[in-house]
Amino acid sequence: MNAEIIAVGSEMLTPARVDTNSLFLTGELNDLGIEVTAKHVIGDDRERLAETVRRALRAVPVVILSGGLGPTEDDVTRDAVAMALDRRQIFSPEINAGIEQRFRQMNRAMPEINRRQAMLIEGAAILLNDRGSAPGQWIEEDGAVVMLLPGPPHELKAMFTRQCLPRLERIAPPLHIRTLQLRISGMTESELDQTIAPIYKKYENPATTVLAHHGDIQVHLRARCPSEGEAMALLAEVGGKIEAALGDRIISRNGDPLEAVIGKKLASLHATLAVAESATGGGLAERISSVPGSSAYFLGGFVTYTKRMKTDLLGVPEELLDRFGAVSRETAEAMANGARRRTGATYALAVTGNAGPTTDGSEAPVGTVYAALSGPWETIVIHRQWPAGDRARVRSLGAQMALDLLYRKLNQ
Amino acid sequence: MNAEIIAVGSEMLTPARVDTNSLFLTGELNDLGIEVTAKHVIGDDRERLAETVRRALRAVPVVILSGGLGPTEDDVTRDAVAMALDRRQIFSPEINAGIEQRFRQMNRAMPEINRRQAMLIEGAAILLNDRGSAPGQWIEEDGAVVMLLPGPPHELKAMFTRQCLPRLERIAPPLHIRTLQLRISGMTESELDQTIAPIYKKYENPATTVLAHHGDIQVHLRARCPSEGEAMALLAEVGGKIEAALGDRIISRNGDPLEAVIGKKLASLHATLAVAESATGGGLAERISSVPGSSAYFLGGFVTYTKRMKTDLLGVPEELLDRFGAVSRETAEAMANGARRRTGATYALAVTGNAGPTTDGSEAPVGTVYAALSGPWETIVIHRQWPAGDRARVRSLGAQMALDLLYRKLNQ
Repeated sequence: MNAEIIAVGSEMLTPARVDTNSLFLTGELNDLGIEVTAKHVIGDDRERLAETVRRALRAVPVVILSGGLGPTEDDVTRDAVAMALDRRQIFSPEINAGIEQRFRQMNRAMPEINRRQAMLIEGAAILLNDRGSAPGQWIEEDGAVVMLLPGPPHELKAMFTRQCLPRLERIAPPLHIRTLQLRISGMTESELDQTIAPIYKKYENPATTVLAHHGDIQVHLRARCPSEGEAMALLAEVGGKIEAALGDRIISRNGDPLEAVIGKKLASLHATLAVAESATGGGLAERISSVPGSSAYFLGGFVTYTKRMKTDLLGVPEELLDRFGAVSRETAEAMANGARRRTGATYALAVTGNAGPTTDGSEAPVGTVYAALSGPWETIVIHRQWPAGDRARVRSLGAQMALDLLYRKLNQ
Repeated sequence: MNAEIIAVGSEMLTPARVDTNSLFLTGELNDLGIEVTAKHVIGDDRERLAETVRRALRAVPVVILSGGLGPTEDDVTRDAVAMALDRRQIFSPEINAGIEQRFRQMNRAMPEINRRQAMLIEGAAILLNDRGSAPGQWIEEDGAVVMLLPGPPHELKAMFTRQCLPRLERIAPPLHIRTLQLRISGMTESELDQTIAPIYKKYENPATTVLAHHGDIQVHLRARCPSEGEAMALLAEVGGKIEAALGDRIISRNGDPLEAVIGKKLASLHATLAVAESATGGGLAERISSVPGSSAYFLGGFVTYTKRMKTDLLGVPEELLDRFGAVSRETAEAMANGARRRTGATYALAVTGNAGPTTDGSEAPVGTVYAALSGPWETIVIHRQWPAGDRARVRSLGAQMALDLLYRKLNQ
């Protein structure tokens, strides 16, 4: 069974925008054994969009549209699909009430213009949207199905997963799919690829994908077979070889990012964590606290962006800062010890570095990062020199190296 | 003048692949005043591709195809375009000699299969490829032009820039382009659209695009005219009306995000800033410190993820926390005052809230956020109830509302 995906909106046709919804949808459809055979991005043009929908429906039995469901004149998806299917649109008091209620919850009156979003194509089932005002629509016609989904990825994903997938599974019984998600820390992307490419290149099934962003690397394996046994066997064969090659660089097998793995470990040890940040400026705390439930072990921390804050909040001696500089092994160590002392946490992580873009000459070169871990028995400091030039990247790599340091210690 | 872009190849329809050629091509076309009104990715299917080319040619005078020019049976672009235009293909000894020579340079004999790449659509001009074996083709028909370009980006870019652009410039002389970037804070996307859609909808030129992410909204205007004076006049006319309608919701006109605008203002006032965060967990400090040079005014802050941290680090009275709860107007105020007192900063921002996913019942409902600003004269607290369900989004909106609060105060 095949599908086509249509993203709607002139803003998707600029040099900087990429339709990422179709990537998510393709993955989900593939899991049902549905192949995507064409994708389109169409501007805010009713006629051109209606024609694209008509042609897609001649070619495939599943057509998914994303975007163009907003309240403005530019939002042409409802009109275009109604034209393509030659169906009327009907005002839905039910949808309208939902949108009104949503605005009420935000203590605001619903703008008149939002009534457009309550227009339902004749015969369509409503797909509720609890994350935005645009409801989706599910329309069946002559054994084919057309889905109208909202453009914002977090709205589309929730709606598709909860409301479209169960319906689709009735139409297309899923293939048996087994996946393995390995999360890697403590090596670079090219080190990883050199290690595992000779293994996975030999196999089309399972499909292997490497995703890397600022030191956080994931390897995804995906086996699709008519039977569960075949899928599992295939995954065990290839996944086993890759796991053996990567060893302790693998930090999770369930998609958990480093901060979640650390969180579980800390919780199981009844240990607590605090941070002290300079170069990462809050990014390390942000990552740790992004984990739901992190308040069980994460106490909080300090962002000490000036010398004065380092001395006042963390008790780093002024002489030490003057002698070694704010970006130094000694300062990182004193920051971690200070954060631990001031919060009473079991462990404290500290990061200091120079993310750039410039340096005043007295400091360490751009790209220098020190991370320190203060624990019950000792304080460990590590140092890395990352490539200069990308401030955001140096900051992310700094947070990653600090988390990796803690992970290695907790799993010694 | 409008264009459509078609990427060819089933490998472009997997969950991890994005068609980046179309982004490059869109930028180049836009500079000639050619708008891209649709993009397609079509798998290795002659019929479907031929139909897509036919439809595109009915809609626009410029159609660009990338990929599918390889030597294998799967490479269907030549066949499909020949079908769409109802033209024959002719073996080109000239192309064939070029491919043979290329293989000779690599000390290899040309495989028989590569003769397919020497097939030229009747009437086409050859686009030489010095970076790969697949030549491109340039075809004119009834005032329209169809380009067949190779898929690998480095081949496509070189071929398009050197051989297609000069030809296109004869058809569409480059336009003068002037742009205006407005950054908006303190209103929702639909409030914005209600305000400015009645203005910008009347104009196709300048083109207006609205980008929104977690409360951070941008409006881009782009005027394209035969002369620079006309472009500037057009931009002044429409931009002026939009600016008048948005008033103080506009926070920058040069692309600067809210944190950069605030940074410049603080620096000019010789004022300093500190933060105290609970719900945002470091994300507010991370945004403020993401601005290069932020150490001139950003002192740092506190991530107080537990009650104890709020009392110990910020001096929030325990009785106050017990009485009003950690997510309350009173706690937000005490956190901001505490951060200001402990750091000596001119201003301190605090955020407390419940980002979810769950609440233990004693707390405020998921989505509740309080932001407080402590300054030399007073402490202001604001409250918002954001939609629940997306932890990361509530956290981002919390940071945005705190920054907006400070921005308004600084610009009173």
